[in-house]
Amino acid sequence: MLHQPRRGYRAATDPVWLAAACPARDGESVLELGCGAGAALCCLGWRTGAALTGLELQPGYAALARRNLAENGLDGEVVEGDLAEMPAELRGRSFDHVIANPPYFATDSLPSPDAGRDTANREATPLATWIDAALRRLKPRGTLTLIHRAERLAGIIAPLEGRAGGILVLPLAPRTGRDAGRVIVQATKGGRAPLRLLAPLIVHEGERHIADAPDFTAVAERILTEGASLSLGEA
Amino acid sequence: MLHQPRRGYRAATDPVWLAAACPARDGESVLELGCGAGAALCCLGWRTGAALTGLELQPGYAALARRNLAENGLDGEVVEGDLAEMPAELRGRSFDHVIANPPYFATDSLPSPDAGRDTANREATPLATWIDAALRRLKPRGTLTLIHRAERLAGIIAPLEGRAGGILVLPLAPRTGRDAGRVIVQATKGGRAPLRLLAPLIVHEGERHIADAPDFTAVAERILTEGASLSLGEA
Repeated sequence: MLHQPRRGYRAATDPVWLAAACPARDGESVLELGCGAGAALCCLGWRTGAALTGLELQPGYAALARRNLAENGLDGEVVEGDLAEMPAELRGRSFDHVIANPPYFATDSLPSPDAGRDTANREATPLATWIDAALRRLKPRGTLTLIHRAERLAGIIAPLEGRAGGILVLPLAPRTGRDAGRVIVQATKGGRAPLRLLAPLIVHEGERHIADAPDFTAVAERILTEGASLSLGEA
Repeated sequence: MLHQPRRGYRAATDPVWLAAACPARDGESVLELGCGAGAALCCLGWRTGAALTGLELQPGYAALARRNLAENGLDGEVVEGDLAEMPAELRGRSFDHVIANPPYFATDSLPSPDAGRDTANREATPLATWIDAALRRLKPRGTLTLIHRAERLAGIIAPLEGRAGGILVLPLAPRTGRDAGRVIVQATKGGRAPLRLLAPLIVHEGERHIADAPDFTAVAERILTEGASLSLGEA
């Protein structure tokens, strides 16, 4: 159950994929940069006993995230602040895992009439800054997991090159044979394993969408509706 | 028909994929950086009436490339020189297409006892230098096509970011569900289209290799044995 703003940014399935792909175990700590109303944190808290922390720029969304955690019976803290100027209370801490679902649209894209949605959607902070902030907050061997539009693949893996290793690239394709729409990228701080470009995860069965019938593949169904984890790189 | 060195670097299927993915048409010009014994140039010349130019560091391989072009009844020139210090005869020219299959192994990898194979295999010249040299030799709207190990994806697309557009990333996976082993990356000089992460091209049928029976997928068979072209991004 998730409260979202009546107007403004609404989570779709991306935070669910993101939470599924974070390999957090009970007792480990997870920081989400830009947690919004807390969709990914709630999914993570439902699946794991990890200690949850969110950082959110917009006070209204931070308040919603706190409410959503509480109403789902989950512990977790939500810090208000800007990842580009990391709040003091987070600057001294490091986490086992960092996750993020950064804004998807360039700053030269059409603005939304809703200021909150605009901040959630438009990339005021460069992607490289998100990745830099994430890597700084990670413990050695900690993992960073991002979900973004596939077209931003270069902007994601370029800042990781030489600073993190074991990069796993998982394309999420709507159907077999289609371009990836999203990409999940995971990297290990201090890792040295080479990048792996994984087989795509196919979200929907069949060649095209038939009427309004649900047509998730079995793997998508398990993750999106049953809360299963998504182990990148374990075929 | 291709003469290759008795000892030294031998072409496998990668130059065939590379040539198939180059969208050269009759009358257009193609430069291959590091053409070796000319496998990709011969494939291109067999399929198209493009004007072929190769640049090769090692004189013995350059001589083989000339012989291979001639014995296959193809026109083409092969220039000896180092792409990191572009020979004067190429520096003033630009091409419709540039292709390259750069060395696959890092300089800290185990050296080969064969000096020629070593030069062909080990990355003495950084990948970013290959890409820089390629972009400089391209006409506006010209295409650069590279094939490399998938694990070098970051090293390929990072230098392209901001300097070329319309980046197409085609994973080549040995079988369905497997990691990509190779990646073909194509970019357009001066292009502005966003990156596309394409559905993987699957090389072999089935889950695993059965005995020594040929098991190419239909698309791989057409490209590898019939000389078909490979149109990236046209599903």
